[in-house]
Formats: sequence, C-alpha cells, structure tokens
Amino acid sequence: MTRVYNFSAGPAVLPEDVIIQARDEMLDWRGTGMSVMEMTHRGKQFMAIAEQAEADFRELLAIPENYKVLFLQGGATSQFAMVPMNLLQGKKQADYICTGHWSKKAIAEGRRFCEINLAASSEDTGFQHVPPHQDWKLDPEAAYVHYTPNETIAGVEFHWIPDSGEVPLVADMSSTLLSRPLDVSRFGVIYAGAQKNIGCAGLTVVIVRNDLIGRPQAGTPAMFDYQIHADHNSMYNTPPTYAWYVAGLVFSWLKRKGGLTAIAKINQAKANTLYSFIDSNDFYYNPVERAFRSRMNVPFILSEQQLDEIFLEQAKKAGLTNLKGHRSVGGMRASIYNAMSQEGVETLVEFMKEFERTRA
Amino acid sequence: MTRVYNFSAGPAVLPEDVIIQARDEMLDWRGTGMSVMEMTHRGKQFMAIAEQAEADFRELLAIPENYKVLFLQGGATSQFAMVPMNLLQGKKQADYICTGHWSKKAIAEGRRFCEINLAASSEDTGFQHVPPHQDWKLDPEAAYVHYTPNETIAGVEFHWIPDSGEVPLVADMSSTLLSRPLDVSRFGVIYAGAQKNIGCAGLTVVIVRNDLIGRPQAGTPAMFDYQIHADHNSMYNTPPTYAWYVAGLVFSWLKRKGGLTAIAKINQAKANTLYSFIDSNDFYYNPVERAFRSRMNVPFILSEQQLDEIFLEQAKKAGLTNLKGHRSVGGMRASIYNAMSQEGVETLVEFMKEFERTRA
Repeated sequence: MTRVYNFSAGPAVLPEDVIIQARDEMLDWRGTGMSVMEMTHRGKQFMAIAEQAEADFRELLAIPENYKVLFLQGGATSQFAMVPMNLLQGKKQADYICTGHWSKKAIAEGRRFCEINLAASSEDTGFQHVPPHQDWKLDPEAAYVHYTPNETIAGVEFHWIPDSGEVPLVADMSSTLLSRPLDVSRFGVIYAGAQKNIGCAGLTVVIVRNDLIGRPQAGTPAMFDYQIHADHNSMYNTPPTYAWYVAGLVFSWLKRKGGLTAIAKINQAKANTLYSFIDSNDFYYNPVERAFRSRMNVPFILSEQQLDEIFLEQAKKAGLTNLKGHRSVGGMRASIYNAMSQEGVETLVEFMKEFERTRA
Repeated sequence: MTRVYNFSAGPAVLPEDVIIQARDEMLDWRGTGMSVMEMTHRGKQFMAIAEQAEADFRELLAIPENYKVLFLQGGATSQFAMVPMNLLQGKKQADYICTGHWSKKAIAEGRRFCEINLAASSEDTGFQHVPPHQDWKLDPEAAYVHYTPNETIAGVEFHWIPDSGEVPLVADMSSTLLSRPLDVSRFGVIYAGAQKNIGCAGLTVVIVRNDLIGRPQAGTPAMFDYQIHADHNSMYNTPPTYAWYVAGLVFSWLKRKGGLTAIAKINQAKANTLYSFIDSNDFYYNPVERAFRSRMNVPFILSEQQLDEIFLEQAKKAGLTNLKGHRSVGGMRASIYNAMSQEGVETLVEFMKEFERTRA
C-alpha cells in the first residue's frame, strides 16, 4: 500500500493515524463486538464517543460556556439558510461581506430569506484581496454580519477578526476552523463542514451563542431550528454517528499534536515553504495579495498554461494528487489542511522545481 | 475479536462482509492511495462509486425511469418537512395515516406547513393494528397521502400498498425499504434513513416521481428542494460520501444474496422463527395483531416484568445486544433487519427458551 500526498480542497486528506485507528476499530469497537456504525446513538458507548468529541472540540477552541456546539448534517450550504432562519428574528436585513465563491453562495441563499446589504465586496478585482475594514458599509440595524474567513477557491483568508459592534458576527469557517487558535467569543455563530479539518463529509459543526437561538422564523423546519438541536444535544433525530466518531478521532489527534497553537505553527511553516518557492520563481505565480493569502488553500498558475495537463499527469505519477484548480479559476491549487505534512509540501515543491527544470 | 448479535432498531447491524470490506479498503481504495473518506466528490473515483451505488439500488428495487433517486442528508425527520414543502404546490391540506410513533412525528412536522387530515389512526387501540383501508377518510383534493409502512417501535407493518387514487402516495420506509420486493410505481415519494437496511446513519435515500418536483413553496431552503438535488445528481453540495460508499457496499452485498426476492424469504423465515416461538409460549408475548406484525421489528414482553433487567443482562452476556424495547413501549424488541442472520434469530430463541426454563 502506498499512500499519496492528497492536496484535495475537500473532502480532503485525513491524518493517517486517524484512518488507521478507524480501520483497526472497524469490526469491533473496544471489545463491544460492534462497529461504531452499528451502535445505537442512544446507547452508552456512542454517547461516550459523542461527549468526548464535543469535550475535545471545546477544549481545542477554548469555547466559552455560553456557546452551544452542534453536530449536524447538511453541510455549510444548509447553514446558509439556517443562519437567516434563526437569526433574523423579525429583522428584514443582514450584512454580508463578499470575498469569493463561497461568500456568493451564502449571499444567494440568504436572499431567499432577507434583504442582503452587501457591505463590502472584492468581486470587481477578481477576489484577490479582502476589502479594507474601514471601507465596509455595515448597518448597525442588521440582524447579523456574515463573512467567509477563508475562501477555498481563490485562496483568500482573513488574518484578523472583523469588529461588528453589537451585531452578531457569523462566519463560514469550513476551510479554516481548527487550523489556528480562535477567539470564539467574538462570534455569534461559527459553522464548518467537516470535510476539511474536522473529519469526513456528512457532518457540520456549528458553534452558536446561547442568546441567539430560540426565535426561528415561521415556517422553519424542526431540523433547521438551532434550539431544537441544542435541546437534544444534537440527537433530535439520528445524528451522523460515524462521521461524529471520525471527528472525535481527529480532535484527539490534534490534541496529541499539541493543539491549535502547535498546528498553527506547522501550518504557517507549510504555507511559507510553498509561497516562498512560488514567489522566488518566474514559472509559478499566485495572484493573491500577500496580506490575504490563505494558509489552507494555495492556488498557483503556470506561466505556460499549455503545460497544465502535463503538470497534473506527472504530479499524479509522483504521488501528488488533486492539484487541479477549481474550474472557475483554472491553474493549480494545493490545499494544505492540518493533515497535510510539511514533508508533503516539500515533496510538492521539489516536484515543482524539477518540473520547471525539465519542461524544456 | 467476537462479534455480537446486535438487535438494535437503528443504527443497526451491518452485513459483516460489508464492514470487512470497508475495513480492508480504509487506507487505500483500490490502489488510489486514498481512503474513500479522503476523495473529492467531484473526482472520477468517487463519481464511479456513487453511480454504481445508484445503479445497484435502482436494479434491486426495479425503479422506473420516471423516478429520481436522491442521496441526501438530514434523516427521515428532514423529509417530514421536505415532503410538504415540495408536494403541497399551492394546496393547503394533506392526508396522513397514523399507525405509531413515527407517523406521529411526521404529522407533527407536517402541521408546520399545512392542515393535516388524519384520514385514519390506530392510536386509540395502542397502535396494535393498521386501520382497515375501507375506513380511511381520504380527501381526493389532498396534496398527498402520507403513511409509515413499518412502525419501528410498536412493530406494526403494512403488508400491502394502499390505494390513494390520483393523489400521490408518500411513504416513510426507513425500517422496511429493501427488506422485500416493492412496486415503486405505486408511490409518489419513498424515503428512508439509511441506518436500518441501507447503510450507516447520515444518509437518507429518496425516490421521487419526476412530475412531483420543481414547485417548492416560497421560503424553501435550497437544501430542501428536491429539484435542486435532482438537477445536481445529489451533489449540489458535498454529499455524505462515506455513507454513500457504505450504502453501495450494502447494495452490492444484497445483489450477491440474490436481491429482494431472496432476502424477503430469509426475512420471512426469521420472523416466523421468532413469532412462532413467542406465540407457542406463555412467558413471552407480542401484542400486535398477527396480520400486521412487522417482519423487521419484533417487540415482546415478559410475563414477569420484574425480570426485564435480568433478561437484558444475561442476553448481553450471551452476546445478544440491544434488546431493550423503546422507552415508550417497554419490554423487549428484537430488530431483525436484512443483516441479521437466521442463526442470530435462532440463537436468540434458544436464549429465550433457556431463560424461561431457568428463571425459577
């Protein structure tokens, strides 16, 4: 068996320790004679798995007690609707910051439920930066301010938390949560699909401040009501048990790695390695302004686009997979989430050097 | 490693062949160097897995071409809302048949969206039968007729398909789908949570007739719109990839077993073994009218309820787990889904005999 270096933007590489453990426990979880997949979610074994996962997640992010953590289904795309359905609370308008593809998706879904005040956008410059905070046209009467701290496709990341005053700040952190320490107390709602830094697809983690829930708009399905999930510890109906278990394995792995401070250093080093090489070089190019470059998703283009296919083919042969950029951007993209090692990034850089050297 | 006989109502036992295969492929799916969990859902490997799963599912159920098959998240509980949100189409009222706990859940959620005509109910007799079809008060102007062909908790099953005339028939088949052949063409919508006969929790399969979709009510989130999922082959957003893969393994196992005709015979034999023993015996009792007994969920009570705890303890020691009945009913329940073997049922019966013999 040869494992590849998998640079997929998501579903993405998982820590090898995690999938080895999942494999080893598959037929018989700790002497129970059952796979975790086969456990009733109401039984004490799965309850223990679920509670440990939440406890570890809370510890990793130092989540204050006045926040609920929900383990849901439906992806960030469901959150695009759940946020307005739960947070509008009679208001008719919310502020959105548009910094890329996923911001636009959140805005399009939000429009089904309220008026969107586009408080800032970098669309006119091709999403290569974050609009300066002082230029944002926030409305103090907005129900909430929504933004996307890391845009997976263009590779643009906020390296600070915006100040939204008294208005709850809502963030789609799908591709950045758990990659670095975070001051959760600055947020009203944080949500993330699991398939980048948390675990496998089919799980969505939501962190929501207690005082923001319990007033969903009329016509909200029970499954879209944060309060109902909070009241039932995310077991109003059968939760995605196996995905929850895998997330728990990832949280435990992250704690063994030293938590978010430690992983942030590793992530910074990986990003530095890749961006430094790209910048030191005329053949590869990253268009994002340096202050806003993502530590998780690194798009780059070849100066000779006709070599794209050959680059991807040779990379795959060298065990470097899923480097193709999103169809809307083209070129390449290396996603370097928590589970991607420094060694993987260095192997990529060596390959890129060698590809450039021999392309002629 | 000793595997137990797991009689959980769901999440439930999976075929051992399936979890062995999942274990063996965990770190490296067929030479790709990746776990299925790590595959992008847009890549050709996962697309092949997804398409094969759908093809096998369609083959097993002989699903006509004018039906879509959707692989969704959110459980049957989300369907309780998606059905009215998509099928009302301007009508204000739907018919519901109430035969147990899960019917009631569907009705309670349905009330958020429309007027419910309770066309028939067996609640007054403790859900121990199905109300005779000739007594149903169906409304020919209803948007749809909803029923629950198998009630997991009380163990009541329809052994025929109701005639709803021109009104679309909608069924929550979570605990019966794939247990026997089914004439899909009789239905408008069939839905099922995966965690009984399909795979692991976190996946919901929906079969919906093409002409019923595309007219969701205002305020329906994109994720609750059947048409959007149909248009994107269930990949409008990242699907629950691993659960989809496990479902595919189950479908393939079921085909190897001989498909639904073969599994129905096995299921009938298992149910006969257990019910015959219960009926031949004064110590154990099943209260459901014989014509409506479930082939999947067999509740039974001990004539001396003070022995319940000892029964459960000794059963567990004998490798027979999750036999406790639902808290709303008490007593015991043996769920004997497709993955439970005849041998498992016979082992249970032997244990029950021995328990009765030695209880004094």
